[in-house]
Amino acid sequence: MRAVWLEDQTLSLRDLPTPAGAGEALIRVRLAGICGTDLELVRGYYPFSGIPGHEFVGEVVEAPEPAWVGKRVVGEINVACGTCEPCRKDRPRHCDRRTVLGINGRHGVHAEYTRLPLANLHIVPDSVPDEAAVFTEPLAAALEIQEQVQILPGDRLLLIGAGRLGQLIAQTLALSPASLHVLARHPQQSALLEGRGIHLIAEAEIQPRRWDVVVEATGSPSGFELARRAVRPRGTLVLKSTFHGEVALNLSPLVVDEVTLVGSRCGPFAPALRLLERRAVDPAILIAERHPLAAALQAYESARQPSRLKVLLEP
Amino acid sequence: MRAVWLEDQTLSLRDLPTPAGAGEALIRVRLAGICGTDLELVRGYYPFSGIPGHEFVGEVVEAPEPAWVGKRVVGEINVACGTCEPCRKDRPRHCDRRTVLGINGRHGVHAEYTRLPLANLHIVPDSVPDEAAVFTEPLAAALEIQEQVQILPGDRLLLIGAGRLGQLIAQTLALSPASLHVLARHPQQSALLEGRGIHLIAEAEIQPRRWDVVVEATGSPSGFELARRAVRPRGTLVLKSTFHGEVALNLSPLVVDEVTLVGSRCGPFAPALRLLERRAVDPAILIAERHPLAAALQAYESARQPSRLKVLLEP
Repeated sequence: MRAVWLEDQTLSLRDLPTPAGAGEALIRVRLAGICGTDLELVRGYYPFSGIPGHEFVGEVVEAPEPAWVGKRVVGEINVACGTCEPCRKDRPRHCDRRTVLGINGRHGVHAEYTRLPLANLHIVPDSVPDEAAVFTEPLAAALEIQEQVQILPGDRLLLIGAGRLGQLIAQTLALSPASLHVLARHPQQSALLEGRGIHLIAEAEIQPRRWDVVVEATGSPSGFELARRAVRPRGTLVLKSTFHGEVALNLSPLVVDEVTLVGSRCGPFAPALRLLERRAVDPAILIAERHPLAAALQAYESARQPSRLKVLLEP
Repeated sequence: MRAVWLEDQTLSLRDLPTPAGAGEALIRVRLAGICGTDLELVRGYYPFSGIPGHEFVGEVVEAPEPAWVGKRVVGEINVACGTCEPCRKDRPRHCDRRTVLGINGRHGVHAEYTRLPLANLHIVPDSVPDEAAVFTEPLAAALEIQEQVQILPGDRLLLIGAGRLGQLIAQTLALSPASLHVLARHPQQSALLEGRGIHLIAEAEIQPRRWDVVVEATGSPSGFELARRAVRPRGTLVLKSTFHGEVALNLSPLVVDEVTLVGSRCGPFAPALRLLERRAVDPAILIAERHPLAAALQAYESARQPSRLKVLLEP
């Protein structure tokens, strides 16, 4: 099969054997997304060699349980052992021995086929098009915020960053009746938000120490510093993006102001699919480009542009 | 009146006018404690000139409401404006315009007399001796952890640091049925904990990524790093002590492991007094020395010893 291959920070297109894995489903990839993490893998921020990619919608072509064959599915990216303490305590996304699709110890989805255990698969409702279903994984990551932090109707929410993940966070936070303002960097990002009636805010207008919940989704240290200044005493600062290297941080203000800092990563797929089925969110408006798998290297190049939203691959 | 005076990082004993303050109670200090924050004020970590000290038990000698005169009281240290947004939202300890007893904008209690608004005072039950009541403020600070973090009976708790505040945190956490281990540095700290049936743990025995709630109360960056390694994915790290200067921190592991970091400062006095009345905690075992106010400078010197627990002043 054709697949993208990452090795020594270099991407190439290769012909590889169709993946084999006992007890797992073989899935034909219908549509796959390129995400910030994929770009970071290429930059060498995480050590990974193999097929990258973890955002996809596909069709099961082989499965240990025949009923799955032919189903259109999305797949949770953390493959858990099922026996370690986090697994036993119902935190499989934090399994001690997990592999992660296209990120850690497991080939990903920027290929014609991929494999996952049946336990990771969710059937996509017929009414949800591929162009929406391919966003299930980042949409679930956005919803993880509300798994971790209770948003109250009277809260003032501030989202810093309106890129690929930021847009989905904005759409999901906007489903709560809380007030929401978003700091966006690019006109295109702003336009998508305004089109959904979501309020923008300029950096200079952000009142310090006044926001109940601040979500940092820029992936840069300056975004973190801005978020820290904005959050109110006893408020919550959600760190939704990773950035590499160390930040020099004075922790005392967090103690004096009793701020809660919440790291937030992968989220639950079932709620994300419910929102897609209800058309309560519209991730497809983020689609900037679609490329065949043969043009995957150009697709990665394009996804690297700072203002570019979602670039899709069609294997 | 006699009072300790702090100016330009230098302590002295002075004769000062008895404090006057319209609408506030005048309180004769019966017993006062020296706390880590007082020592940090002397080191110049916070800009404060005046009478230091905020841990006390005293007797009301003048009050806008005569019924208070003669009452034995303790006093909340944050004096709130009552009208700003944090005050209106029932967070007076985070008042935008607060003064703080002996810390910020208000003379403290290392003196014969002090002043506070009636709203800050709590009557001490007769059965609670001065030697216990003088710990109400740090005991309330210890209880703030449980105002912010839900401790479940099956949780594994790790407390790093067993100094003045750490001892009180240990005693209050031990009231929950959760398992608790404490990393103490000095034999005397360990003995007090063992005397109450609280388990100790050596640094080498602390399993990484396995503790549900980790409380950092050492006040040093190395304590924070140890706490970060110990907390489990999706667990909670409570920062209970401030330390000065910046820490170089890689925030990505907090995001990947979805750790919640909770800054925690001052707490509620009423629950602290209830525990003292029930003799559910015994802070008086921390008392290392008592000095008359005339020997306050030696008392501060003694409190500076790393292994020294509570040093009291008797004005």
